[in-house]
Amino acid sequence: MSDSVELVEVGPRDGLQNESVLLSAETKIRFVNALSRVGHTRIEATAFVSPARVPQMADAFEVMTGIHRREGVRYSALVPNEKGLERALDAGTEEIAVFTATSDTFNRKNTGVGLEDSFKRLAGVVTEALTRKVLVRGYLSTILHCPYEGRIDPTLTVRLTERLLDLGCYEVSLGETLGRAVPGQIRSLCADLTSAGILGRCAGHFHDTYGLGIANILEALNAGIRTFDASAGGLGGCPYAPGAAGNVATEDLLYLFQEEGMAVAPELARQVAATALIESALARPLPGKTYRAMGCDEGDG
Amino acid sequence: MSDSVELVEVGPRDGLQNESVLLSAETKIRFVNALSRVGHTRIEATAFVSPARVPQMADAFEVMTGIHRREGVRYSALVPNEKGLERALDAGTEEIAVFTATSDTFNRKNTGVGLEDSFKRLAGVVTEALTRKVLVRGYLSTILHCPYEGRIDPTLTVRLTERLLDLGCYEVSLGETLGRAVPGQIRSLCADLTSAGILGRCAGHFHDTYGLGIANILEALNAGIRTFDASAGGLGGCPYAPGAAGNVATEDLLYLFQEEGMAVAPELARQVAATALIESALARPLPGKTYRAMGCDEGDG
Repeated sequence: MSDSVELVEVGPRDGLQNESVLLSAETKIRFVNALSRVGHTRIEATAFVSPARVPQMADAFEVMTGIHRREGVRYSALVPNEKGLERALDAGTEEIAVFTATSDTFNRKNTGVGLEDSFKRLAGVVTEALTRKVLVRGYLSTILHCPYEGRIDPTLTVRLTERLLDLGCYEVSLGETLGRAVPGQIRSLCADLTSAGILGRCAGHFHDTYGLGIANILEALNAGIRTFDASAGGLGGCPYAPGAAGNVATEDLLYLFQEEGMAVAPELARQVAATALIESALARPLPGKTYRAMGCDEGDG
Repeated sequence: MSDSVELVEVGPRDGLQNESVLLSAETKIRFVNALSRVGHTRIEATAFVSPARVPQMADAFEVMTGIHRREGVRYSALVPNEKGLERALDAGTEEIAVFTATSDTFNRKNTGVGLEDSFKRLAGVVTEALTRKVLVRGYLSTILHCPYEGRIDPTLTVRLTERLLDLGCYEVSLGETLGRAVPGQIRSLCADLTSAGILGRCAGHFHDTYGLGIANILEALNAGIRTFDASAGGLGGCPYAPGAAGNVATEDLLYLFQEEGMAVAPELARQVAATALIESALARPLPGKTYRAMGCDEGDG
């Protein structure tokens, strides 16, 4: 596997959004700045969402305007609607992410409207963002399993991915939101995306609920996906997906890629330092295995 | 992957041996009996080792004679020397496991003697055990990485595996003791074992230190290995391998195999119940992801 791979560090957004301990904007800014020093090229820094629905993201403007924008790093923000887009643009955001999910019920729980209305809403955001010269990434959640509707038809996932790309998203991050998928299902979905000619514009976004996040990433990697979302220390979870665990831990992916001899920009030791900062702020042990093992190594000398 | 796979539940031995909370023999007997009800065909129940070195295993005789021997289940015990073998035989043990490691230093730390002396010692045990009509399994630790000697030459691992088989072990469990290996290294080692014509007599024993246990198992599975060691809830760790985490969790493997449509005897829901028993006795949360997710599902109704 002499190849290169890109990570999108989503810890400051997907990782933190469900943490009940409310962190100060200053802490989040220090976290994003530490991640910038890791060597990441892409960091999802915050979300311009309803503070009532996601209190942890109420300080999105402060965070986005407070971080040190390091050259070579793209800082993105999740945006649910045109109001969020305006706030993001005011804060100087250069890339936004819009989101939807394959299932009607999941969309309703997450955004208050069903699948088609969710698409209508995000289409308006995408069009406006592109007019304003802002890059747009699409998130498609529940690509294979929905907590409410069960198994998802992969042809629906492929069709919705195509629609997001057609709208103008430069990339679609495929969210295996529940972490229920197994490698065989990922292989099959990737084959469908390849047949549709769109696999090269997809990123993988895996959660580790059943311990299969890394195995699923390896399957997606074998199929040709080269961009993966991950969060510092395995931060994360989803309030609309009961029992779903955090994102795949950035350190575990960095360790894997490094040991497999793949080119990847972020440096593992610096990542561990950035993660230690946020773990200390949250005052709870993060689940990432490599992060724990390296912390333990350090402790032992 | 319409195929069958066999698990060896090593929680009562490899899982518990380093737990500092000393459990009663009665608790261990209840744990093994619960594992028997899961549908396991092979359970490593205890170790007839020095009580001074491994206090948790001081009650090996009580455990081995106290468990309910369910039909269709083979109960094995780790045995380091002829004294241990005699105690195991007195307790009616039908299968023993002998162990060594690829590295001189690791052997010295673990058993007090180097590699060749370790082989001499275990050869005596194997010969005697076979004479007494007891099945013998071999463990080979540090197959790719040693905490003291670093990377291990895979040709050494292959040669030592052959020697264990030649001595009369019916199977060698390949211990990736540190959990440092990545799938590419497993693929390469399995290819060497296949060339040597002995892969079919090997089992995989993976630890999850860097979160790669399942990914490594999938690689070994693809290469043709069909027997894997795992421990309830991901119990385990190794005192002679600083920072090494527990075994791959039995529940994660059962979830994976079940969802991939492979035939495997143990039932996931019953496994979760058995693991809950030992978690409660240890009074610490176990790391297994599927175990946690299923516990969470149950909690939420």
